[in-house]
Amino acid sequence: MKQTAKISLCQMRVENDKRRNIEKAVDMVETCASENADIVILPEMFNCPYDNTKFPDYAETAQGPTIESLSKVARDKGIYIVAGSIPEKDGEKLYNTCFIIGDDGGIIGRHRKLHLFDINIPGSIVFKESDVLAYGNEITVVDTKFGKIGVAICYDIRFPEIFRIMALRGADIIAVPAAFNMTTGPAHWELLMRARAVDNQLFIAAVSPARDENASYVAYGNSMVVDPWAGILVKAGQNEGIFYADLDLHEIGKVRSSLPISSHIRDDVYEVVLKKDNKSHRGLG
Amino acid sequence: MKQTAKISLCQMRVENDKRRNIEKAVDMVETCASENADIVILPEMFNCPYDNTKFPDYAETAQGPTIESLSKVARDKGIYIVAGSIPEKDGEKLYNTCFIIGDDGGIIGRHRKLHLFDINIPGSIVFKESDVLAYGNEITVVDTKFGKIGVAICYDIRFPEIFRIMALRGADIIAVPAAFNMTTGPAHWELLMRARAVDNQLFIAAVSPARDENASYVAYGNSMVVDPWAGILVKAGQNEGIFYADLDLHEIGKVRSSLPISSHIRDDVYEVVLKKDNKSHRGLG
Repeated sequence: MKQTAKISLCQMRVENDKRRNIEKAVDMVETCASENADIVILPEMFNCPYDNTKFPDYAETAQGPTIESLSKVARDKGIYIVAGSIPEKDGEKLYNTCFIIGDDGGIIGRHRKLHLFDINIPGSIVFKESDVLAYGNEITVVDTKFGKIGVAICYDIRFPEIFRIMALRGADIIAVPAAFNMTTGPAHWELLMRARAVDNQLFIAAVSPARDENASYVAYGNSMVVDPWAGILVKAGQNEGIFYADLDLHEIGKVRSSLPISSHIRDDVYEVVLKKDNKSHRGLG
Repeated sequence: MKQTAKISLCQMRVENDKRRNIEKAVDMVETCASENADIVILPEMFNCPYDNTKFPDYAETAQGPTIESLSKVARDKGIYIVAGSIPEKDGEKLYNTCFIIGDDGGIIGRHRKLHLFDINIPGSIVFKESDVLAYGNEITVVDTKFGKIGVAICYDIRFPEIFRIMALRGADIIAVPAAFNMTTGPAHWELLMRARAVDNQLFIAAVSPARDENASYVAYGNSMVVDPWAGILVKAGQNEGIFYADLDLHEIGKVRSSLPISSHIRDDVYEVVLKKDNKSHRGLG
């Protein structure tokens, strides 16, 4: 496993045209490759405006043009892509899904958003994903040449349980494609990203769409990378752009040996357990 | 249950004289009572310098002069006291223990630090509580006239599992007597307090000793109260003093109805479980 990784965050301005969104994503990945990035992360719903009324029309399967185009550029450039998310169609159901594409172009993982975003702050922000989308049921960590990468999508960030489980499965980096809004963003975005990093002593890489004041849902932007001591390695503003960070994966071991939270978890008293397969997870490894 | 609570944080400067520490704590509680506070919180190890070599000499039982003095003032003034922590002697063992005293002077709860602080950052901070102290084994939430109060002591803050369990048991306020240092304090103190508040949508009240640059262990100070939306209601600096916040407990319900994290926990997929009694906890109630 390589111990350094150049990671790139593509803070895309998402448009009302799927073809153009795909082209922009591919262009951005090519730029990242030309800058010798190892891993590219795209934002939540990068091929579709974040709008319940648009998800059905923009939805695709893994064999659709969005993921096909990204698989091709990943293979051509030899680069990993954590493909933000797209509305994924599976039979009659739609999911908010992140496909993770290996540097050979193959799909090495798929995370379907586990926690759907239903918020109701009258006069401020109202959104109900569960009107249109179905729930994912799995926690996702994949192997790469640059360590293990976990994925959480946006509202998933508010549930520390799944971050603990990803850490216990050995995640080194957790990618968080996300579209916070202008209420929750200023209040909680940086706080939550830094908290998950410091609790689990790993890297968090959060990628938002660029802010578009004319969109029905205005994304906060502020894509960022946080290190295992909660330090911010890079933070975007609100505009479209690509943001890079060089991760030294040794930092994980250094922080964990200074402050060995892993070995101090009182799993004789409490434990985060997975229900589906009833396996328990011990030790950050 | 009363829906507002005036809470007071006693950021004491702890001295090398147990009797004086007790007198100061009692004086501060009297001042809080004269300001019509409902609940007083003292810092971690308020009767003893935070120093492994001193814990055995300063240790007492619940029947010792420290808790007896506080029980008396609680009864006299009709005020709740979350008595920070003291080195508690129980047979051959010592614990880092918080006694919670009701407004009738009775002990209504006891939290023994669950996670002992063993840190080793060479040249910066080295401390190993487990050389001298024994581990607590219970998660603590008590009923009061001002809602349910949970307790975590210092390093316990780094383990989100126990905060989830306290929230699921109905905690409205979690008191965190704590003595972060000049390495972990600037890096993580505010981050962790705000994260536990926002994840569980409740109040966090963290109380540190005042900073004493001449002590062997220099506490960070910065006692603070965080509301359920992660807003900071009051924050101390480094000096000794009493800091007040008026809590509107309705805020908990308001935040939870806007963003109902409780009902979105995927307890069909994962769950934080207690191991000792094997009970599971669902719904923030």
